[in-house]
Order: sequence, then C-alpha cells, then structure tokens
Amino acid sequence: MSATEHATPGYHADKDALIKRLHRIEGQVRGIEKMVEDDRYCIDVITQISAVQAALEKIALGLLDGHVRVCMGADGGAPADPDERIQELMGAVGRLVKR
Amino acid sequence: MSATEHATPGYHADKDALIKRLHRIEGQVRGIEKMVEDDRYCIDVITQISAVQAALEKIALGLLDGHVRVCMGADGGAPADPDERIQELMGAVGRLVKR
Amino acid sequence: MSATEHATPGYHADKDALIKRLHRIEGQVRGIEKMVEDDRYCIDVITQISAVQAALEKIALGLLDGHVRVCMGADGGAPADPDERIQELMGAVGRLVKR
Amino acid sequence: MSATEHATPGYHADKDALIKRLHRIEGQVRGIEKMVEDDRYCIDVITQISAVQAALEKIALGLLDGHVRVCMGADGGAPADPDERIQELMGAVGRLVKR
Repeated sequence: MSATEHATPGYHADKDALIKRLHRIEGQVRGIEKMVEDDRYCIDVITQISAVQAALEKIALGLLDGHVRVCMGADGGAPADPDERIQELMGAVGRLVKR
Repeated sequence: MSATEHATPGYHADKDALIKRLHRIEGQVRGIEKMVEDDRYCIDVITQISAVQAALEKIALGLLDGHVRVCMGADGGAPADPDERIQELMGAVGRLVKR
Repeated sequence: MSATEHATPGYHADKDALIKRLHRIEGQVRGIEKMVEDDRYCIDVITQISAVQAALEKIALGLLDGHVRVCMGADGGAPADPDERIQELMGAVGRLVKR
Repeated sequence: MSATEHATPGYHADKDALIKRLHRIEGQVRGIEKMVEDDRYCIDVITQISAVQAALEKIALGLLDGHVRVCMGADGGAPADPDERIQELMGAVGRLVKR
C-alpha cells in the first residue's frame, strides 16, 4: 500500500467529481440518521439505505473500470506480478458481487 | 408518510445503537473521500466501499426484521390494508435484493 | 418440514406457470453446458449465467411474496410461533440479499 | 461472436469439471421443479433457489477470473481493441453485481 499511494490512480481524471459524489452520499447517510432520530417509518428508512447502496455501487463499478483501464495498460500502482494483480482484481470483484 | 411518522417504528428499542452505527458509516464515507483526495490505490478505495455496503446491508436487514415484527403484529404505522402492506414490504425487499 | 408439506403453499395458484418457468431455466442451464462444451467465449457464457440468475431471482421474489401473503394471513404451513415464522422469513430474505 | 468461438477460452483447462458442475446445477433446478409439484413449503423452495444462485455465482466468478487471465495476457478471443475489451469485461461485472 505504501508505494502504490504515489502512483496515479485510475480515477485521477474524475477525482473532483468523485469526491463530490462521495460527499453527497455522506450527506445522505446523515439524513438517514436524522430520519431515525425522528422515528420515521422503517420502510422509508430502508428505501433511503437502498438509494445509498445503489449510489455506492455505481461509484465502485466506476472505480473498477478506471482501475482495469490503468492496470490492464501498465503502471498505475497495481502489483507488478500479473497473478497478484488479477487475484487482487478478482478479490475486489468478488466482494462487490457478494457484498 | 405523514400519519406514519408518529407511530412507533420497529427499530424503536434499538434507536440509539442504530444512530451510532449510521454515524460510524457516515465517518467511513468521509474516510473514503479522504482516500480519494490522497490518491489512494483504487482497489483499497473499492474495498472500503464494499465494507460500507456490507454495514448498510446489515442495518437494512435489521430494520426489515423490526418492521416485519411490528407490521405482522399490527400497529406500527404500516398501511392498514394487508395488500398494500405486503406490496410495500416486497418493494423494500426487492430493492435490497437487486440493489 | 413434514407437516408443512401437506399445507397449501403460497404459490399454489401459479403452480403450473411456476413449473414451466423452472423448466425453462433448466433448459437454459443445459444450454450453458453446451456452450462450454463448444468452447464458447467466456463473456457469452457469463452473460447467460447472469440471465439465469435474474430469472431465478424473479421466481424467488415471487415465491416470497406468495409466502408473505399466506403467512401474514394465517395457515399456509408456516410455524405457528410468530417469532419462528419471522426468523424463518428473515433467514430467506437474508440469503436472497447476500446470495 | 463468430471468430471468438474458435479461440481457446479461459476456462479450457477446467472444462470437464465446469460441465460437471453445471450438470449438477441442472439437476438441482429439476429438483426444485419437483418440490413445486409436490407442494413443498415456500421457504424450502426459496432456500434451494438461493443455493443454485450461490453455485452459479461461484461459477461465473471463476469464468471471469479465467477470462481476465487470458484476456489480460493477450489472445483468448477477446476484442483486439483494449477499450472494447474493457467495456465488455465491465459489462459482465456490472451484470453480476446488479444481477
């Protein structure tokens, strides 16, 4: 992790937009806390959680896309060893698929 | 939604713990923003997103459990009409399953 | 499981259509075997698997809907004890959500 | 799709095991049909569907792994154009994640 942090990650070009999207999600989670404080109806709370999950999933797939583009090319901070690189990629895919 | 907000939701007994868990997730999302700002490695960012998704899913399933307990009993703010109640429940389940 | 098998399950009214849909899925799986035998392109095989999964998910959600309708009413073969009944339901939902 | 079918797919080494696993899944689906014919309890039917879905997911992730190994190397039947190749890969990942 140490060395890789100085490489240019796959999301570099969209960094500002990405931070903005994450920031919006942070606000959505805060909104869900508020809903719970206000004793809002369970189904409405669950619906908001589903919305956050969908937004996070979209971001994760976008990051994965950027990662594959960088990593399939070359550089980018991924492990030099192709086996490790693929194992790492498939680990990330597996966690997204199974959640 | 108006009337239902004054009923006691299924998560009432665990309200404080629930808010604490959501607050922790809010912090995790802020942490992910920081990772992106620091150009951290994509796979590490994706891994953190997966962790947040797993935490949210656990909360959503817990809320659903509380909802079913309250709603299968009676009261609780769910629609009086059983058909509507079930449609609403299955809508929430469907959104969680498909994300 | 023994006693429950003689109750009328929630899918009873759609039984024939349900069997037909499952039979079609069985054929789709056989088709995937054939694709592998023919050395078909991985992505095409994966796409077919995704299609089968989507079809199964739809069936499972439909069964769950029927189950909730029957079980929330009364009868239907679900455990008499409401706690057990809910635990069982939430177990099924959890397995669908996490897969 | 035409040209690609003559390339060696990523799963080639495990082809026989893969066909055997798919054949077992085909049998499981047939078993679910039988359960429905016998009016078996909904929750038990749903549990079996979840088991089939988990088995299919495992196979799909294995195929994806093989695909990435072949495709990240070179040959293998994937589109020659890296952009198309990645788009195709991410399409498959997206369908697995969202189902």
